Amino acid sequence: MDISAFGEFELIARLTAGLAVPASGDIGVGDDCALLDLGRGDLLLATCDSQVEGVHFTLQSSPLEHIGRKTLAINLSDIAAMGGTPRYALVSLLLPPRLSIEALDGIYAGLRAQAQRFDTAIVGGNISSTGGSPQLVIDITLLGTVERGHALLRSGAHAGDLICVTGSLGDSAAGLQTFLRPAANVSPQDLQALRERHTSPEPRVREGQLLGSLEGGKVTAMLDISDGLSGDLTHLCERSGCGARVDLASIPLSSPLLRVARSLQHDPLDWALHGGEDYELLFTLRPSALDEVRSALQQQCATPLTVIGEIQPLTSGLTLSYPDGHSEPLHPHSWDHLKKENKV
Amino acid sequence: MDISAFGEFELIARLTAGLAVPASGDIGVGDDCALLDLGRGDLLLATCDSQVEGVHFTLQSSPLEHIGRKTLAINLSDIAAMGGTPRYALVSLLLPPRLSIEALDGIYAGLRAQAQRFDTAIVGGNISSTGGSPQLVIDITLLGTVERGHALLRSGAHAGDLICVTGSLGDSAAGLQTFLRPAANVSPQDLQALRERHTSPEPRVREGQLLGSLEGGKVTAMLDISDGLSGDLTHLCERSGCGARVDLASIPLSSPLLRVARSLQHDPLDWALHGGEDYELLFTLRPSALDEVRSALQQQCATPLTVIGEIQPLTSGLTLSYPDGHSEPLHPHSWDHLKKENKV
Repeated sequence: MDISAFGEFELIARLTAGLAVPASGDIGVGDDCALLDLGRGDLLLATCDSQVEGVHFTLQSSPLEHIGRKTLAINLSDIAAMGGTPRYALVSLLLPPRLSIEALDGIYAGLRAQAQRFDTAIVGGNISSTGGSPQLVIDITLLGTVERGHALLRSGAHAGDLICVTGSLGDSAAGLQTFLRPAANVSPQDLQALRERHTSPEPRVREGQLLGSLEGGKVTAMLDISDGLSGDLTHLCERSGCGARVDLASIPLSSPLLRVARSLQHDPLDWALHGGEDYELLFTLRPSALDEVRSALQQQCATPLTVIGEIQPLTSGLTLSYPDGHSEPLHPHSWDHLKKENKV
Repeated sequence: MDISAFGEFELIARLTAGLAVPASGDIGVGDDCALLDLGRGDLLLATCDSQVEGVHFTLQSSPLEHIGRKTLAINLSDIAAMGGTPRYALVSLLLPPRLSIEALDGIYAGLRAQAQRFDTAIVGGNISSTGGSPQLVIDITLLGTVERGHALLRSGAHAGDLICVTGSLGDSAAGLQTFLRPAANVSPQDLQALRERHTSPEPRVREGQLLGSLEGGKVTAMLDISDGLSGDLTHLCERSGCGARVDLASIPLSSPLLRVARSLQHDPLDWALHGGEDYELLFTLRPSALDEVRSALQQQCATPLTVIGEIQPLTSGLTLSYPDGHSEPLHPHSWDHLKKENKV
């Protein structure tokens, strides 16, 4: 049977089933990053993610520097999602023979600039030929650190916690759509804003560090939104053993998103709920900490926090609450990276 | 200009030129592993290497379990080459849609068994589609630790040190050749022994740990032989700022290698000097420590140590000394992973 019959999460479950349990002290595997205890000092965070030409980007649509920038950004976002500090990157390149040296230089310039912005040292890597296949692949492993007791996992949410997000949702999915379908009556500024959120997402590193540094268990769980809000909230609830209610009217939508949705006659909330690659932080908060956390994010990072719902008991399931008061089950409709057909 | 006009080492130099110097305390980049100081406790080792279908293996020639085993082995060998202990692996897979689930299971079984043998926990990873391209890629990042003051770098060799290798050289290159050219009058046992050294090399992890654990600077420099003895000895000499004399007659050759060389009418020393992927350790030793180190390797690992020459002053260059007493310059003739045309 071909692997194309399997989904990404099925395959991951199959490959990781029965893996040797890490030695005691290794306190988290299967979160946004592995959380590893080397015995003394800070804990180590490790994550890896790749970008594949023709699957995640094309050289025609993405500015070269954005390709390098984004490949690091998606890994930076995983470190941010644990409340950690990025430290070291290893870059593995799979190079097709017909790639131009100028394209490689451009991609690497974006990668290096992004690394510098976030105080991350590129300390190793590997170059291999594709052996004739035309696709460029960039695979990055990122290492970070987090103070003991300050890593934010997916598993700490409790009923009554507020569900919060940074920034606005759906812009990346909308940006992707503008590459695929012509959007009439859309300003170049709106087009550029949304496309940049897709080709060069901004990892919420400083926001993650701030949320991780808070004392007293104010933030109870966190991950980044890479698969889409509905899918990632499901991940959080599964790991925390709880349900959730999302208030549809409270989901933060940007003005460019609303205008492009109108042009493309698409429901903007569909992008916000199910579109992938936002790389915003999704976290749960004790209600008493809301004012303090909101103002810290605003003052130190100029980043808005929006409360989009509340964690519920497990028995309540995941629901979407409409402005008129009725509710419907919220089904995850996540991006499956193996079945992704959309290409930019 | 296409990147096919560049060699692997040229490209690496181009991409790493001008990278931000790591913060102080990060004491080694550009060795077999990056050597990183997280502030307290052991130092961290990080390395990554990949295996690409059609470049490094084919599903037809390599047993499935060997493919997984080798991909981890080549990374384990890099940790071994620093005297370190492997700890954690992250596995990034690029999966072509037509790959059978049975093939993936077989590869992963080899990977997991290898990880277990060397007490390495698989703590993370990533799965991505190739988007139609038919080539499977396995990319592993391996993290290890090494006690402060005990990491063995490429840069510590001095004139007068003995040049030593573990095991025997050239078997992997000979094994590769038997896939490409029919070898008459070769026993199935010889064929299997050499091919296994190519498809499932044995990383010298325990030997590396032993050499790293010695006190008093007995081992002065080390790396693993992945590019071929001539190329890797050149790397060591460049980093140590020295020359070297290799005594041709002392190079350890296995009996299967000698028999297959006769069958294929190939100079066995060509494979031993320039063939890649031996994954033996190449290290330099203070002469006074030879007996102690040789017997420790023999007793604790049952691994032979062979002295193959002596480190010389930089001005002497790299030379190959023949049994009749004359010498010739030893030119590196390394495996270039980007230009590798041989496929198994």
